[in-house]
Amino acid sequence: MNNLKPSQFLMIPGPTPVPSIVLDAISQHPLGHRSQEFSAIFASVSKELQALAQTKGDAFILTGSGTLAMEAAISNTISPGDKVLSLVTGVFGERWANIAQAYGAQVEKLECQPGKAVDVDQLADRLSADKEKSIKAITITHNETSTGVLNDLRQIAYLTKKHGALSIVDAVTSFGAINIPMDEWHVDVMITGSQKALMLPPGLAIIFFGARAWAAQATCKSPRFYTDLSRYKKSLAANTVPFTPNVSFVCGLQKSLQLIQDEGIAIVQARHLKLRTMLRSGLRALGLRLLVDDDFASPTITAILPPENISVADIRKGLKEDFNIVVADGQESLQGKIFRIGHMGYVFERDILMTLACLHAVLKKLGYEALQSPIQAAVQTLSIKR
Amino acid sequence: MNNLKPSQFLMIPGPTPVPSIVLDAISQHPLGHRSQEFSAIFASVSKELQALAQTKGDAFILTGSGTLAMEAAISNTISPGDKVLSLVTGVFGERWANIAQAYGAQVEKLECQPGKAVDVDQLADRLSADKEKSIKAITITHNETSTGVLNDLRQIAYLTKKHGALSIVDAVTSFGAINIPMDEWHVDVMITGSQKALMLPPGLAIIFFGARAWAAQATCKSPRFYTDLSRYKKSLAANTVPFTPNVSFVCGLQKSLQLIQDEGIAIVQARHLKLRTMLRSGLRALGLRLLVDDDFASPTITAILPPENISVADIRKGLKEDFNIVVADGQESLQGKIFRIGHMGYVFERDILMTLACLHAVLKKLGYEALQSPIQAAVQTLSIKR
Repeated sequence: MNNLKPSQFLMIPGPTPVPSIVLDAISQHPLGHRSQEFSAIFASVSKELQALAQTKGDAFILTGSGTLAMEAAISNTISPGDKVLSLVTGVFGERWANIAQAYGAQVEKLECQPGKAVDVDQLADRLSADKEKSIKAITITHNETSTGVLNDLRQIAYLTKKHGALSIVDAVTSFGAINIPMDEWHVDVMITGSQKALMLPPGLAIIFFGARAWAAQATCKSPRFYTDLSRYKKSLAANTVPFTPNVSFVCGLQKSLQLIQDEGIAIVQARHLKLRTMLRSGLRALGLRLLVDDDFASPTITAILPPENISVADIRKGLKEDFNIVVADGQESLQGKIFRIGHMGYVFERDILMTLACLHAVLKKLGYEALQSPIQAAVQTLSIKR
Repeated sequence: MNNLKPSQFLMIPGPTPVPSIVLDAISQHPLGHRSQEFSAIFASVSKELQALAQTKGDAFILTGSGTLAMEAAISNTISPGDKVLSLVTGVFGERWANIAQAYGAQVEKLECQPGKAVDVDQLADRLSADKEKSIKAITITHNETSTGVLNDLRQIAYLTKKHGALSIVDAVTSFGAINIPMDEWHVDVMITGSQKALMLPPGLAIIFFGARAWAAQATCKSPRFYTDLSRYKKSLAANTVPFTPNVSFVCGLQKSLQLIQDEGIAIVQARHLKLRTMLRSGLRALGLRLLVDDDFASPTITAILPPENISVADIRKGLKEDFNIVVADGQESLQGKIFRIGHMGYVFERDILMTLACLHAVLKKLGYEALQSPIQAAVQTLSIKR
C-alpha cells in the first residue's frame, strides 16, 4: 500500500524542474522534421540560442546528451597528436581530458584541488612557458558540476586567445543562468545541454562554434559522422538538421527560451545569484560547511559537507523519504563526502526555503542541532540587492 | 485568420503517430537519472528490448538519432583499413558506407537499382570470391526507408556468418514491426530508433550488440567516447547509463513496449503485413504504379510513382492543404519521382482507408481519374487471413 506523497522534486544539478508549458509542448504529437512548421521553429530556436550566447558563430542543436556535444567539440577541432591543455576542477573537467585522449591528443592536465577554481596566474605561467606555442587548445569547465566551482572563464579565454590557442568550454550548468558573452570573451567552442538552466528534460545538446574553431575544423583529421558540424552547418542554412532530431524537445526549447526572454535574461541571471546567496546563508546558519569559497561559488550548484557523524547517505535518504526531495551525492572521490544541491533553471526563492526547511528537519531527526534558523538567515538575504 | 483544421497526421516513414499514453509518459516531470525509480524502469526496458530482439546479446539505449547508433556500430567494430562490404539499396544503405569510410574503412559497395532488394546469389558469389577472407563486416539496411524495400536479412546474415564476417544491420524502420530473431539469424550488430515502430518521437537510438561483435570491439582501434559501448556495458550492469539519458523518453518507451506486449508481438507484426496488403491493393485500384515488387515490399513503407503529368509536389501539397496529412517525397535521386507512405507503429486499418480516400480526392482534384475505388479494393483485403 502506498500513501499519497508529493511528486518527486529535483534539487540535483540536472535534470532540473521543467515548467508545465514546456512539458505541454513536448507532449504534442511530433511534427515531421522536414515540415515547414518545424523548419520555422528550428530557425527561430537556433537564432535565439545564438542571441543568448551573444555570438556571431553558429549554434547547432544535437540530439544527444551534453557529453555528445563535448565529443563534437573535440572531434571537430583536435587531430591525433595535437597538444591539449585540460584545466581540471573536477569530474567534468576530467571528462574533457578523457575525450581528448580518446581522440589521440597529447593531453596535459592542470589540476586543482576539489572545490578550488583554476588559478589564472598558474595558467598564465604555463602558457608563457609554451614558447613554441605547441598548445593547440585549452579545455575548461565553466561551472564544475561535481564541486560547484565557477571558473573565471573571461580571464581563461582571454589568456588562451592571447596565446593563439582555442578555448573549448563546457557551459552545461552555466549557460542561460550565467552571462557568457561568447564573442566578447573570445570563447571559440562552447557546449551545453537541455536539462539545466534551459529547463527541459535531458535529450538535446547544443554546441556553439566560432570562426577560429571553423578554421581548426578545416584541417581536423579526426573521424566523425553524427558529430560532423559541417553537415549541421549545411543543413542549418536550410533551417534543418542532417539527422532526424528530437522534434518534440526542439518545440519545448522554443517555449523555454520564450520564458527566459519574457522574464528577461538579466533578471534570470540575477535570480540565480540571489538563490546562491540565500542558500549559502541558510546552510551556514545551520552550521554546515560549504566546499567552495564565496569567491568562486557557483550560482547554480552548491556542495555541502555533512556534519560530523552524520552520513551523506542518511541526509539524502531523509530528504527523499520524508519529503520526496532529491539532492545529489558527491561524485567519484567526493562520493559520501559532500552532497550537492542544484538551483538552476526553473527554481525560485520558495524552492530554496523549502529545501532549507526540509534539510533542517532531516538533520534534526538525525540528531544534529542547528546553529540558527536557516530560514531566518535566508529570508534576510532577500532584501539584499545584487 | 486560420480556420480550424484537423491536427497534422504523419503518414511519413518517421516520426510516426505516438499513442496518448506514451505522450503522457514523456510529459511527466523528469526523474533523476540516478534515482532508484529510474533504474528500475531502465532495467525493465533494457530487458524488454532484448526479448523483442530475441537475443542474448546486449541492448543499449543511446540518447540520439538512429544515425548515432549506426556510428556506434562502426566505431566499436571497424578499425582504419578494415574491409567493409556495404550492401546498398538506397540512401540509408549508402549512409553505412559513408560512416565506415569516415572511420577509414576500405569500403566496397554492392549496389542495387532503386526499388530492388539485395541479390542474395550475387552476395554469395562475392563472398566466395573473397578467398583470403579479407571482408571483415557487411553492412545492410534491413528495411530501406528511401525505397520501401525489405531485404532478406535472414539469408544475408547467414551467408555473412558462414563467411566469418560480422553482420551490421540497420533495423530502424523494421524493428518491432517485423520479426527479427537476432541470434537465430546470426545478426551481430543491429540498431534502431525510437520514432518508428516503437511509437515514440525521435530522440532515442538502440543498439543490440552480440558476442562476436564484442570480440571485434576488444581490438577495435577507432576513437570513440559517447558511443563507447564498453561504458554502456559497465553501466548496464548497475541498471544505469554512463551519460545523462533522455529519461522522459525511456519512460515513454516503457509504455510503448507495454502496448506492444499487450497487443502481442505476433499480432503487431501481422497488422503491419495486413496494412501493406491493404495499401498496395488500394493504390493499384487507383491505377498507380508501385516502386517495389510484392516479393520484397516493405510492411512499413510504400513508395508510389505519381500518375503521368501529375507532380509529387502537387500530391503532397493537396494532402497537406486539404487534409493535413503528411506523406514523404523521394530522397536524393528519387526526389520528385516517388512519394512514400509510412505505415509503421501506431497505424491501423482506418488510417490506411483514410489515406487512400484522401489520396483519391486529391488525385481527382488534380484531374486524374482513378481506375477503381481504392476503398473497395482495400476493404476486400481485410478478409484475407495472413
